[in-house]
Amino acid sequence: MKKPLILVTNDDGITAPGIRALVEAAQLMGDVLIVAPDSPQSGMGHAITINAPIRLHPSRAFEGLNAYECSGTPVDCVKLAVKVLLKGRQPDLCVSGINHGSNASINIIYSGTLSAAMEASLEGIPSIGFSLLDYAYDADFEPAKYFALQIMQYVLKQSMPYGNLLNVNIPRRPLEAIQGIKLCRQADARWVEEFVEAEDPRGQKYYWLTGRFENNDLAPDTDLWALEQGYVSVVPSMHDLTNYKALEMMRGLEYMQSSPQIAAV
Amino acid sequence: MKKPLILVTNDDGITAPGIRALVEAAQLMGDVLIVAPDSPQSGMGHAITINAPIRLHPSRAFEGLNAYECSGTPVDCVKLAVKVLLKGRQPDLCVSGINHGSNASINIIYSGTLSAAMEASLEGIPSIGFSLLDYAYDADFEPAKYFALQIMQYVLKQSMPYGNLLNVNIPRRPLEAIQGIKLCRQADARWVEEFVEAEDPRGQKYYWLTGRFENNDLAPDTDLWALEQGYVSVVPSMHDLTNYKALEMMRGLEYMQSSPQIAAV
Repeated sequence: MKKPLILVTNDDGITAPGIRALVEAAQLMGDVLIVAPDSPQSGMGHAITINAPIRLHPSRAFEGLNAYECSGTPVDCVKLAVKVLLKGRQPDLCVSGINHGSNASINIIYSGTLSAAMEASLEGIPSIGFSLLDYAYDADFEPAKYFALQIMQYVLKQSMPYGNLLNVNIPRRPLEAIQGIKLCRQADARWVEEFVEAEDPRGQKYYWLTGRFENNDLAPDTDLWALEQGYVSVVPSMHDLTNYKALEMMRGLEYMQSSPQIAAV
Repeated sequence: MKKPLILVTNDDGITAPGIRALVEAAQLMGDVLIVAPDSPQSGMGHAITINAPIRLHPSRAFEGLNAYECSGTPVDCVKLAVKVLLKGRQPDLCVSGINHGSNASINIIYSGTLSAAMEASLEGIPSIGFSLLDYAYDADFEPAKYFALQIMQYVLKQSMPYGNLLNVNIPRRPLEAIQGIKLCRQADARWVEEFVEAEDPRGQKYYWLTGRFENNDLAPDTDLWALEQGYVSVVPSMHDLTNYKALEMMRGLEYMQSSPQIAAV
């Protein structure tokens, strides 16, 4: 049997411990191609580099493995892997992470880790973003690695609907304290943000983003609920942002363009 | 009657002609606060600045108006406007654009213009992203301005469901050739990308992203279809990326964690 080809990327950069854990899991399943940012890219969302050149170099971060570091964003990494390195050949799976810190709920929107996975799904590659609820550099990735392996195995065997990606978050618990895997919807939580205002050494004012997470969506079908109960949360996700419920509610907009008072404003 | 407060931002930067057109339309409807990037931020997606300070300065780009330029991303602009400049007071509306170039279909995912609008919607502010299907710096923004005014008026009068934003694209046609407004879903189109490979003046290889847009989703309820027919397309959009259809299909994942062959891999 031909081994599957697994593309591995992340947003914390190629030297982060999280991607090392994911590569170790992926190696057990197939051949691995690693293309990851040469510096941390957290919070980059679905950014792409269109107004500047991108560099791509072989990396020594993983001995004996096919690894590249890229000056671009996580989304750029996926594009370069498929178009330049694989010359259009599709990997059988793309995995991103393991992110240092949660990407549950609306964090999927800000996350470079998940945007890389979404980019792969847009290209028709089954893809999974993994995140551990622990920001520490020396976090214990072993339980996350165990579940990453299981979920990769499932996806490689069962495949996924076209354009689908999985947003997987792993609670910060020892393996034996994790309750299992829960399929969930994205909780409708919010960041409540503040900016720290300060002065730089030259006396110029600057702002620095800070914030805390606030969840008013406590329903038991959400990822945040599952994580709180000690489950690994899996949210099947996609790129269609259409608000189908609002589509009918706003139909009135189609009938206003000939309204005479508008021309008079 | 108290005038509504309208926050205006974009991703092409505060000096772009497109934001000028949008400000002129917004001024007819209410009081305007402009907070826009100090340089072009196209393709930034939902990026936020978390590892660096952000600068915010009063701008002279709009004489007599309350305008600020910001060193951060479009999403940063919205956050700073609400948290720092308005000290938590909610604007009645946030508008972003008018973007130089289309943000129809999956471009919403890559677009700084639309990500700014989504950030506002996450904060509970009704919001609209406007884009004109013309990349030219000296494009004619008058027809787009006319429809921006109509749609802003509708949203201020009718309000919108919580967390909703509108992705509005305007075809490149004279006003009299535009057929009206169409409510649509996001077309499931794709970028087919290539990288130009070249060498810099020091002989170092680089890659530069290029691509063409390919649409295999020609259904008449899509934004791309509406635009082709000469309509202004309006896609009500939101931040929930859950793939509800896939949720049930993948339920098997929940039952595999005790599978013995996994531990054996």
